[in-house]
Amino acid sequence: MNAIDPPATAQARALAARYGTEPKAGQLPWNDVIASLMDHRSVRGYLTDPVPPGTLETLIAAAQSAATSSNLQTWSVVEVTDPAKRVELAEIANGQKHIVECPLFLVWLADVSRNQRLAEAEGKTLEGLPYLETFLVAAIDAALAAQNAVVAAESLGLSTVYIGALRNNPERIAKMLDLPPGAVAVFGLCIGYPKPESVAEVKPRLPQEAVLHRERYSTAAEKSLRATYDQRLDAFSRRHEMAAYTWTQRVIGRLATIKSLNGRDRLKDILNKLGFPLR
Amino acid sequence: MNAIDPPATAQARALAARYGTEPKAGQLPWNDVIASLMDHRSVRGYLTDPVPPGTLETLIAAAQSAATSSNLQTWSVVEVTDPAKRVELAEIANGQKHIVECPLFLVWLADVSRNQRLAEAEGKTLEGLPYLETFLVAAIDAALAAQNAVVAAESLGLSTVYIGALRNNPERIAKMLDLPPGAVAVFGLCIGYPKPESVAEVKPRLPQEAVLHRERYSTAAEKSLRATYDQRLDAFSRRHEMAAYTWTQRVIGRLATIKSLNGRDRLKDILNKLGFPLR
Repeated sequence: MNAIDPPATAQARALAARYGTEPKAGQLPWNDVIASLMDHRSVRGYLTDPVPPGTLETLIAAAQSAATSSNLQTWSVVEVTDPAKRVELAEIANGQKHIVECPLFLVWLADVSRNQRLAEAEGKTLEGLPYLETFLVAAIDAALAAQNAVVAAESLGLSTVYIGALRNNPERIAKMLDLPPGAVAVFGLCIGYPKPESVAEVKPRLPQEAVLHRERYSTAAEKSLRATYDQRLDAFSRRHEMAAYTWTQRVIGRLATIKSLNGRDRLKDILNKLGFPLR
Repeated sequence: MNAIDPPATAQARALAARYGTEPKAGQLPWNDVIASLMDHRSVRGYLTDPVPPGTLETLIAAAQSAATSSNLQTWSVVEVTDPAKRVELAEIANGQKHIVECPLFLVWLADVSRNQRLAEAEGKTLEGLPYLETFLVAAIDAALAAQNAVVAAESLGLSTVYIGALRNNPERIAKMLDLPPGAVAVFGLCIGYPKPESVAEVKPRLPQEAVLHRERYSTAAEKSLRATYDQRLDAFSRRHEMAAYTWTQRVIGRLATIKSLNGRDRLKDILNKLGFPLR
């Protein structure tokens, strides 16, 4: 696809939804793919309609087409349809009901076990496998793959939401899905057609200047950028009848206490038990 | 965008390039976005032509539109144009010359320092910040964001390649880019117009059955799937005049020794020094 120059208004609308302002609207390279990426929103309510036949295979083909470090392909995915397992997964994730209701649910794994089995079959030892670096490669590559699946799903008119709360109890998930040592659930993904009332407004993000640095990291403008963003997120929350909160309040609420990690403070020990020494 | 039914031949060609076989060609949901995702290839040779004005802003807008855990936005990005810094980055990455030659180079950071500064300004402590879980969230969210930037870049006719080798020396990069404690380079990204001779064939991946599991993890067919893939990757390598190698040989070469990690066996210590206690 080539860059096209659509009506500046579409670009201005998309930039305004994410950033509140659109200083460069009409001046940025733009096309339908970019418009679709910018229109993303996570959806937490699904119709029971099934996804079209072949959707899973298409999404995984897109996922496998993402880059993977040294072609190691250190990730896997488990499709879970069994209603009892879905209920258990929702329970692990603090009762997120969309895990039960969505037509397609995927558990994404950081998975070095395939590489380990390969080495065993060849009578070799992989000295590099037990390191934190190799776990990180696996987690990052799972994320790149999953994001391609998300982009593909949204291009088909489907909605998605990542479920990080699977990390509340990766041991229970490893048992439930018969995972071998060296494989661990890093997040889940709900896919399906959204309930119309569950499609929220596009969520505002930090001003671009707060995350994009030139040549060197700079916090010079950060305080004022955060103040602007706090106001916008507070207004967004009020429009959606959530408890009003600013970004500052949200970040503190999510990270202030160990309890707010919902058991994920044990992640290092759990990874050790599941076959990741994290040297 | 809606699912469309293109000529089955385009779908068959794309599936054959990734998988060697196309058992379901013509039966899968398909559209231009999916065709573009499946056509991805990493490019390691760039023309010096600059990217169009506004490209960086568009890519970051796409990146910020990706999902982010609890809206914490624990990533940042540094654009590096300074030729001396580019040379240093290429040196860290074992001399990958495309880091010097590409018109746009981005360093992606796992970054909890912004959340930390926010808490300090409010006189709060974030007990959840020092945990491995929070670093993992930051690395995963950086990957989701970067992959959206890659999809956006490719939709504009640009090519990309991830540079995991920045992790060979994150301390040196932290100094070079003035990173605050709690921010670390997780990978780089080259973006630009490819040299025609650097656009390789689409790289074959493991058969889908090897990474996609139903209800529970299964290795039943793995041995024969790996044998098939070894043959395909060996043929691919020979066509491209690389040293011939199978997937099995490649995985062992990349992970057999600690030396093959290129210094990344020190990653845990380095992260500790850069402000990630990884509790």
